[in-house]
Amino acid sequence: MKVGILGPRGTYSEIAARTEFGEEIEPVTYPLITDVAEAVEDGEVSVGVVPVESLREGSVGETLDALAWLDVKVKSEIVVEVDHKLLGTKDSKLNDIKQVLSHPQALAQCRKFLRKNLPDAELISVTSTAKAAKQVSKLRKKYMAAIGSSGLADLYDLKVLQENVQSGQENETRFLCLSKEDSEPTGDDKTSVVFYTEEDRPGILYEILQEFATRNINLTKIESRPSKKALGDYLFFIDFEGHHEEEPIKEALEEINEKVATLKNVGSYPKRF
Amino acid sequence: MKVGILGPRGTYSEIAARTEFGEEIEPVTYPLITDVAEAVEDGEVSVGVVPVESLREGSVGETLDALAWLDVKVKSEIVVEVDHKLLGTKDSKLNDIKQVLSHPQALAQCRKFLRKNLPDAELISVTSTAKAAKQVSKLRKKYMAAIGSSGLADLYDLKVLQENVQSGQENETRFLCLSKEDSEPTGDDKTSVVFYTEEDRPGILYEILQEFATRNINLTKIESRPSKKALGDYLFFIDFEGHHEEEPIKEALEEINEKVATLKNVGSYPKRF
Repeated sequence: MKVGILGPRGTYSEIAARTEFGEEIEPVTYPLITDVAEAVEDGEVSVGVVPVESLREGSVGETLDALAWLDVKVKSEIVVEVDHKLLGTKDSKLNDIKQVLSHPQALAQCRKFLRKNLPDAELISVTSTAKAAKQVSKLRKKYMAAIGSSGLADLYDLKVLQENVQSGQENETRFLCLSKEDSEPTGDDKTSVVFYTEEDRPGILYEILQEFATRNINLTKIESRPSKKALGDYLFFIDFEGHHEEEPIKEALEEINEKVATLKNVGSYPKRF
Repeated sequence: MKVGILGPRGTYSEIAARTEFGEEIEPVTYPLITDVAEAVEDGEVSVGVVPVESLREGSVGETLDALAWLDVKVKSEIVVEVDHKLLGTKDSKLNDIKQVLSHPQALAQCRKFLRKNLPDAELISVTSTAKAAKQVSKLRKKYMAAIGSSGLADLYDLKVLQENVQSGQENETRFLCLSKEDSEPTGDDKTSVVFYTEEDRPGILYEILQEFATRNINLTKIESRPSKKALGDYLFFIDFEGHHEEEPIKEALEEINEKVATLKNVGSYPKRF
């Protein structure tokens, strides 16, 4: 099964894809999130896995844009525990490390560990944890280490110098599996919608939330951004509990559709978060 | 005047700082957004400039976290037009280019131009537009180009091979100027607040928005994220028009304070967006 992922090989996108579909998948890497979504839209791959939200970095705008403007649906959400390790060459020890390479988010997540244990090490930002591991593996210097998942140690023949180097709580990233179709109701689902309002006036969002509140529908996420299609247009992204085939939700969406310029149902899928 | 910015030199953070404070500033670079905010908190610098939202990438979670948990206020917002150019060595022409280096967001923003004009060029992601320019400047190969601001051309002695290479609409990034104090009322202000609710129940957000809607206060941004301090805790970030010293807003915030677990006024500042 071909699964589009955000490359290169060995990133958390690939871990998310394997978590969802098992080890048998054939990952097809793309350089950008938009490329993964377009590959799904064009049928090049049947599903694509992209990050949508990390606790450190917040929402991923490029993924929200893909949901808003491309012909793709959310089939499932995948939550991956970020479990960073310090990875070095086989003959290296923690004390040898003078340079630490990783994605800037990973360096930020491991800041406490680095300050305490490697206060003099030079921190070098690269564009992915996978690239950091690849670099350390290529240069094979005892004083170089990368921060990333243990899967990278196998992929690039490195050794885990230290487990669990990230700070306690910021340890989850949420991915979406994109497809042409969303999922059937399971009884415990979530739905994502995007809408935009053509008027920027006090109370418009309040009126829309009223449709959810009066029907006892629980929102799990809300976000606004200027649509940039026209001045005063706002895009709203809302996730809520329930499946769009269920009666109160159908009704709420019909009412909201009357109030906004455009409403897009991005999909219903089993709740995992 | 010392201004903390997200390094390295020449990034859009520095452009934002100069837009706000003029060319006379002394930029102090930090590797992480949290470092800039902590430098403001500790008084190492009197103000710090960090990105909070880009149209492509959405909100910057690390900045939202700094607002929520550190003792800093928003003094002003700064909107910077992202005006990407293709930068090469002095003897190079557009046709020579076989490799394009930039931040992945910048490459994504310039995707249409690159597909049309340099369909065979290799795209290489690096961690900032400044790093890309530095690399091209260091290696001085005719076939290499960087995507970034024209300021980088001066800083790294490069030539603008092509103006305006980004796609039309995604051309603004919003920065915040952080300080120990926010700003005095000007009559046309915005206020940012963060609150968290200790209960995850339908309608809680709706009740809070009611306090704004009934007082005719216009929201300009809303975002939710799990606080991760405890299960079911949600952090909400809301920006709205008006200054916290103005009567209806004072009143609304008092009412909201009664309904939520914690409410933090992050600051009022002149509206620019």
